[in-house]
Amino acid sequence: MAGRRLGQFELIARYFAPLAKGFPGAGDLKSDNAFLPADARHDLVVKTDTIVAGVHFLPDERPEIVAAKALRVCLSDLAAGGATPYAYQLALALDPAWTQRWIAAFARGLGADQRRYGVVLCGGDTVATPGPLTVTITAFGHVARGKGLSRSGARRGDELWVSGTIGDAAIGLLAAGGRLASPALENRYRLPRPRTTLGPLLVGIANATADVSDGLLADAGHIAEASHLALVIERDRVPLSREARRILRAEPSLWANVLGGGDDYELVMAVPARRRSALLKAARTARIEVSPIGSFAAGRGVRLTVGGRTVRAPRAGYVHF
Amino acid sequence: MAGRRLGQFELIARYFAPLAKGFPGAGDLKSDNAFLPADARHDLVVKTDTIVAGVHFLPDERPEIVAAKALRVCLSDLAAGGATPYAYQLALALDPAWTQRWIAAFARGLGADQRRYGVVLCGGDTVATPGPLTVTITAFGHVARGKGLSRSGARRGDELWVSGTIGDAAIGLLAAGGRLASPALENRYRLPRPRTTLGPLLVGIANATADVSDGLLADAGHIAEASHLALVIERDRVPLSREARRILRAEPSLWANVLGGGDDYELVMAVPARRRSALLKAARTARIEVSPIGSFAAGRGVRLTVGGRTVRAPRAGYVHF
Repeated sequence: MAGRRLGQFELIARYFAPLAKGFPGAGDLKSDNAFLPADARHDLVVKTDTIVAGVHFLPDERPEIVAAKALRVCLSDLAAGGATPYAYQLALALDPAWTQRWIAAFARGLGADQRRYGVVLCGGDTVATPGPLTVTITAFGHVARGKGLSRSGARRGDELWVSGTIGDAAIGLLAAGGRLASPALENRYRLPRPRTTLGPLLVGIANATADVSDGLLADAGHIAEASHLALVIERDRVPLSREARRILRAEPSLWANVLGGGDDYELVMAVPARRRSALLKAARTARIEVSPIGSFAAGRGVRLTVGGRTVRAPRAGYVHF
Repeated sequence: MAGRRLGQFELIARYFAPLAKGFPGAGDLKSDNAFLPADARHDLVVKTDTIVAGVHFLPDERPEIVAAKALRVCLSDLAAGGATPYAYQLALALDPAWTQRWIAAFARGLGADQRRYGVVLCGGDTVATPGPLTVTITAFGHVARGKGLSRSGARRGDELWVSGTIGDAAIGLLAAGGRLASPALENRYRLPRPRTTLGPLLVGIANATADVSDGLLADAGHIAEASHLALVIERDRVPLSREARRILRAEPSLWANVLGGGDDYELVMAVPARRRSALLKAARTARIEVSPIGSFAAGRGVRLTVGGRTVRAPRAGYVHF
């Protein structure tokens, strides 16, 4: 078997999804979140994410940033599930070089984000590893009973919307690697800003949601696949920051990174046309821009159009694997 | 700071417990489990544990055993909390040598334990790591509202009871390392048997509980400390397997391992004398032996007595850190 490697999704589908049969709230592990019945009016939304030094963040990253990133990637999934975050568990595997100073700064970073996002630590584990620092967070949120959002549920004719701007993190990753200069975008890569205020407002508005962690095309494609629909994305409607626009003008080949790169932590949403004004109102309440960039139709697959012509999708999305 | 290292408990108390203020169910992170309000009649009991290849299990351990160990150490904590297990999340950081064959066997191991313990996978994450294989499980269980058990709550005069036999895993670890021969005990070290049938029956009987993961003296000591009491343990009442008794006869210095070593995954319980018959009945129902080995009194600290004389406790317990 050595040398034959499956991707993360295939691995989960083949070996782990069968273990989640009989747990309706696990959605065959195709959903990012698990939904556990809580009280009569709520579901508990649960999401686990692991980040590893040198794989998901730079090995010399500041501890406050590592803490924030670990927490925020989970909160981003909860937001995509329509959940209001609540608490989290922390499993910390400390590498041999750990110091008290590092831990103190890491804990300060968590504390700052606890205040920012209204969550609180409720347990966990701390161990030593001879390998790289590894942080696993399991985050908990609440959503109205049965109302949690997931990748499945988009309908024919739904519009695809996206929050904020796309591609900043992917360009920021190049900047972090010294490939180009853009301190602002480098920061977008290093520090996700999960859309926790928008997510819960999407309940009753969006038919399906995902966060952009693997890349716009990949994550929007996951919605299409889970909803058994085809998706067309119009490249020129994809919202860009001023900085990304400037860099793309100089180097158009970076569109592949913008559409295929991960770590944006924006929300993509399938929204029926009749709920457009409700969506715009929710976005105003959350003070977050949203943009329509495509639409769902019967069929399968994701098409990218530029100036009305279909082009080859740059790549299937960055998978940390 | 380099060179100055804190233990796991000190680290948690200093840096992480402040982050859990305001979450009553976290018990200042002194409890192994977190208690989240679920429905009107239940609390959701949550426990996270991480195991790392080469630290918590042998690097060449069989994948089925790794899976079982990862799950069972969590289930053991839920049992100590009085909870009936229900579901779990899995975060898997795969080392560079992973193969499909390994994953398939690992998933089979989880599947077998799902049937054995009545739990189901409800989500998680799979990532690659350049370091050793690392498995984090967050397990969920239910307990009657407000009735969850923890280390605190023991009262003066309570007897200390322990389930099963103590020290088999510690001797088994020596066997696994080739220091002595005992295939049976080696198996006890490799494969915990969490007391999931006894744990939920202790609600209403035990005032405080812990599982023996760090060592009998350490874990019983945690109950004493969390309950602000002193504890006396009579060494000669500590229940031993026939095999452990034989080995201890040949090598009495191994008492230090028996009382200080970890990984027994038995339950230690503080039980008032008036509930002794209720405890014995619960133990019969669960088909698990329980033995009284000491008692709680006003004061602080843990004393070990041998033949009525206080001896120096061999060590404070094995800490994987």
